[in-house]
Amino acid sequence: MKVNQISIKKDMKVSELMEEFKGSGVLGAGRVARASNLLVNMINDPDMDIFMSMAGPLVPGGLRYIVGDLIRNKRIKVLITSGANITHDLLESFGGRHYRDLGFNDEELNDAGIGRISDVYTQSEDFEVFESEIIKIFETISKKIDNDKDNGIISIQRLLKEVGSLIEDENSILRLAYENDVSIFAPGLIDSMFGLQLWMFTQDHKLVVDAVGDMHYLSDLVFESDKIGAIMLGGGLPKHYTLASNLLKGGIDSGLQITMDRPETGSLSGAPLEEAKSWSKAKHGSNLVTVVGDATALFPLIYAAALDKID
Amino acid sequence: MKVNQISIKKDMKVSELMEEFKGSGVLGAGRVARASNLLVNMINDPDMDIFMSMAGPLVPGGLRYIVGDLIRNKRIKVLITSGANITHDLLESFGGRHYRDLGFNDEELNDAGIGRISDVYTQSEDFEVFESEIIKIFETISKKIDNDKDNGIISIQRLLKEVGSLIEDENSILRLAYENDVSIFAPGLIDSMFGLQLWMFTQDHKLVVDAVGDMHYLSDLVFESDKIGAIMLGGGLPKHYTLASNLLKGGIDSGLQITMDRPETGSLSGAPLEEAKSWSKAKHGSNLVTVVGDATALFPLIYAAALDKID
Amino acid sequence: MKVNQISIKKDMKVSELMEEFKGSGVLGAGRVARASNLLVNMINDPDMDIFMSMAGPLVPGGLRYIVGDLIRNKRIKVLITSGANITHDLLESFGGRHYRDLGFNDEELNDAGIGRISDVYTQSEDFEVFESEIIKIFETISKKIDNDKDNGIISIQRLLKEVGSLIEDENSILRLAYENDVSIFAPGLIDSMFGLQLWMFTQDHKLVVDAVGDMHYLSDLVFESDKIGAIMLGGGLPKHYTLASNLLKGGIDSGLQITMDRPETGSLSGAPLEEAKSWSKAKHGSNLVTVVGDATALFPLIYAAALDKID
Amino acid sequence: MKVNQISIKKDMKVSELMEEFKGSGVLGAGRVARASNLLVNMINDPDMDIFMSMAGPLVPGGLRYIVGDLIRNKRIKVLITSGANITHDLLESFGGRHYRDLGFNDEELNDAGIGRISDVYTQSEDFEVFESEIIKIFETISKKIDNDKDNGIISIQRLLKEVGSLIEDENSILRLAYENDVSIFAPGLIDSMFGLQLWMFTQDHKLVVDAVGDMHYLSDLVFESDKIGAIMLGGGLPKHYTLASNLLKGGIDSGLQITMDRPETGSLSGAPLEEAKSWSKAKHGSNLVTVVGDATALFPLIYAAALDKID
Repeated sequence: MKVNQISIKKDMKVSELMEEFKGSGVLGAGRVARASNLLVNMINDPDMDIFMSMAGPLVPGGLRYIVGDLIRNKRIKVLITSGANITHDLLESFGGRHYRDLGFNDEELNDAGIGRISDVYTQSEDFEVFESEIIKIFETISKKIDNDKDNGIISIQRLLKEVGSLIEDENSILRLAYENDVSIFAPGLIDSMFGLQLWMFTQDHKLVVDAVGDMHYLSDLVFESDKIGAIMLGGGLPKHYTLASNLLKGGIDSGLQITMDRPETGSLSGAPLEEAKSWSKAKHGSNLVTVVGDATALFPLIYAAALDKID
Repeated sequence: MKVNQISIKKDMKVSELMEEFKGSGVLGAGRVARASNLLVNMINDPDMDIFMSMAGPLVPGGLRYIVGDLIRNKRIKVLITSGANITHDLLESFGGRHYRDLGFNDEELNDAGIGRISDVYTQSEDFEVFESEIIKIFETISKKIDNDKDNGIISIQRLLKEVGSLIEDENSILRLAYENDVSIFAPGLIDSMFGLQLWMFTQDHKLVVDAVGDMHYLSDLVFESDKIGAIMLGGGLPKHYTLASNLLKGGIDSGLQITMDRPETGSLSGAPLEEAKSWSKAKHGSNLVTVVGDATALFPLIYAAALDKID
Repeated sequence: MKVNQISIKKDMKVSELMEEFKGSGVLGAGRVARASNLLVNMINDPDMDIFMSMAGPLVPGGLRYIVGDLIRNKRIKVLITSGANITHDLLESFGGRHYRDLGFNDEELNDAGIGRISDVYTQSEDFEVFESEIIKIFETISKKIDNDKDNGIISIQRLLKEVGSLIEDENSILRLAYENDVSIFAPGLIDSMFGLQLWMFTQDHKLVVDAVGDMHYLSDLVFESDKIGAIMLGGGLPKHYTLASNLLKGGIDSGLQITMDRPETGSLSGAPLEEAKSWSKAKHGSNLVTVVGDATALFPLIYAAALDKID
Repeated sequence: MKVNQISIKKDMKVSELMEEFKGSGVLGAGRVARASNLLVNMINDPDMDIFMSMAGPLVPGGLRYIVGDLIRNKRIKVLITSGANITHDLLESFGGRHYRDLGFNDEELNDAGIGRISDVYTQSEDFEVFESEIIKIFETISKKIDNDKDNGIISIQRLLKEVGSLIEDENSILRLAYENDVSIFAPGLIDSMFGLQLWMFTQDHKLVVDAVGDMHYLSDLVFESDKIGAIMLGGGLPKHYTLASNLLKGGIDSGLQITMDRPETGSLSGAPLEEAKSWSKAKHGSNLVTVVGDATALFPLIYAAALDKID
């Protein structure tokens, strides 16, 4: 098959540019086009449920509305992410913001109460509001749970659902997930500012977060899907959990990942998706696409192009 | 200061090569030399406790004895790692092995019951033994815990300590940690074959693993140390947890990381350690070294050279 | 300054997506937006001439028309590239093509006469046509030069201009450069299939390619420009030559690079553009943007968005 | 085959550490061990000639003596490198040095006359000495050449040999190459400070550097070798030229490369060596090893370990 040269023009639509990438079909442009095409197919397939994982600072890094859009339109069924992304989603819901152009001298930033994530910045005042608000939410949940049959024990997914139900922010990922029956899993939740507040709260409240408690429900979600497609933004625990949750049913049917990590160290974060086949985490013959690059630019590009083809 | 050219010779000792790297002091060789020097200083400092994080397939990838050596010599106080490394440590303790040179066709590997991690391979028979053995251990622990005051609730660190006490393998990281009073934390434990078996076990046994339960103890460990140095092999949850656990006390005093991930995406895995200062996870003026490369080659090199200078 | 979350919509234009990236302003999306904005400013500035470097397989990889478009619209004044990109431009002009989806077994590909560049393929028949055609062109040039005052000595830029004048292909980069008075430099020309044929031709023809001969003319081009902006796709010799050619006048005024190489090894290919300031290859206060990623996807994205803002 | 865990000990020799890497055989340690083993086999094979390429700042970065050692012991037959490494070799021969720990503010460095290559620094005084000395050498060579049959035309390899003959520094790569009949090729020579001075010199002296002139001699070197092994440090033009020079004879017989560049962009710098087979630049069945990492640390490690096994 021949490689077509890419043509561009004035007033070009994102989906037109993606068609050009598809016509080329090679190197980075080819990967991006295959990912966008696969995303269209996954969303348009009525028998396919989509699990999405998100690692790295994608909420602080600008993808909060895009994830929200996927949830609002019920295009994903499951979101697996880090405690950090949940923290930053809530931080914005409580009125905080993320900032930029504040410099790179980390000692000076620390003195000014500014935490840095590459070129994204947070302010300690916003975290103070986060802390006081999340404690109130924990209190509400704690009281509710206490009267449960579970005797004060709650799973992470259930906890996040309860939090979502108490957030008043139409752009909140947690709120949108609650409203649209999308399940959020965060197996490493404790390792975050959210987790830190949770720990402090449990010091003098009866609330036990069950680390294992979500597996049964997640397993049910996997088994009730005819087919599963996975969108994996970044690697880490969220990517591993997404793939591993599909192990019992023989693996995902389709998968796309965007990662900047290398495969050679053996870490799953940079591993080719094909490797998942050996572990029965991706099916034989499954459609798997790896895009190498930064998800904050490439996922909006891929999804915006896909929008023009989604039924 | 001048850059000396590196000289090598026959029968050279690793520590002599490292001296040459120190004399050069620039690019990759300079980073490696600074890391080795810092490791010597961290270990030789009687007031410094060392926290070590390990992400990626470092136990399957050949670092099991080296981590064991650090524990046996009480050079580290805390080990923070993934469920996968714990699984693979136990897999070897139960008689399993890791393999190589088995090819890269993942569908064929899957058909043959072989799981691939880059160029490291595992066999399903070994996992079957792992499953039957770990279940027995869970049964023992479950009975022990059931009679506890905690009413069947156990933290991850406590669970791993109990597992370590029941392993009969002098090379086991879990066993050595148990014997030498080194605490192992694995906040993402559930996301592993160990976690999968744990879930299945809890389906019909009373055992609740408390996701938040380790924070108090970990916090105590941080506060009882005069100074803390961190060795971070790979990124991910283990690196984040290591740094975050030091937040409440103003950050680590020294840190070295070996990572192949890039900083530009904003993920912590590739972030420069200086960024931790902005979050009070590393102290102002702390000694921080980043080595870019593969830990399976570079950490043995760094540690072997350090051995000749450790008191 | 606050980070805005990125919003996407159906029928979105590339330039609208870029506005969203600009509103975010951080991580990869922020880099891409700054690059696109800088490209607009460079092109719209009547006092700025643009030097473009291109390393890596960007002609086989789909950017031939886009480079052609920049030349046709006289948006660049100088193109600095590798012998390989020149070879592949001519290969298409002589009727050859680039191919895809031919597999990754290099011994089988070799047996089938197929050369592989990652996932781009070439066929030996196309190279055979290239060889017979380029020899004819060398013959024509040789005869023309022989009667010159230069006694059979020609510089690389002059040679490429003569080649361009003899190509009948409206999409040829060499032809377009000839027609639009854009100068092409290729200091490493000899290291390519073009160079190989050139060598063979010189075995029995009087034609000497002067390695140093372009410097005077390139220096004139630098000095006759009020300001110089540089677009650097990939690193290597073309990037170095672009920056070094500006050394004598104190450096470039603006620069954007797209590269996937890392800075830590010290190679210029992955070096931050700021480093060029220390060498007087970029001016103090110059506007410099580095995008980390694959140019075959990102440069069309950046340029397509810029088109809507170019005067 | 089983993966052995790596053991280290006090007073360990580099070659003992390498044996441990060989016993592991996987991930980065496995790659390093295979590279060292291949280097031993290449050097010990009496029928194999070694071509070495060197890109990136490896002379400023500490590998000058190691390359010198390879030449002095006649372990390599050909060195292919950049004009920059030749410039920095001469800069040290003329009494200049490379420096470190001078900071990263490039505008301040420029004001102080300091050029930065990552964390390696040069001083303008040293370049001034370089300039005055190299001009004297050009004058000597120009006079010698002028009386030649070649009428003032010289190839790059011949020029570098003449320079080497005039250098009084027992550690100079150029001098050692001259003394030991090792041929140095630098097809991109012009793109360097050496090239800049060469150009200035040719402005008012009769000296033409023939860009194509080395191909015949290089081809002879390839054809007179029974077998060819390649050591490729970094990518770029030197790697391409090394592989391409072997095209006419069907490709190299063995090859090892150390690179930090990624394969996905299609640039040769990060390409797997297997790709060379498709182009007849590496033989079917050739032994090819890629090490991912920084050559300033890894090549001394690999070569020092090899020394204990070289006949």
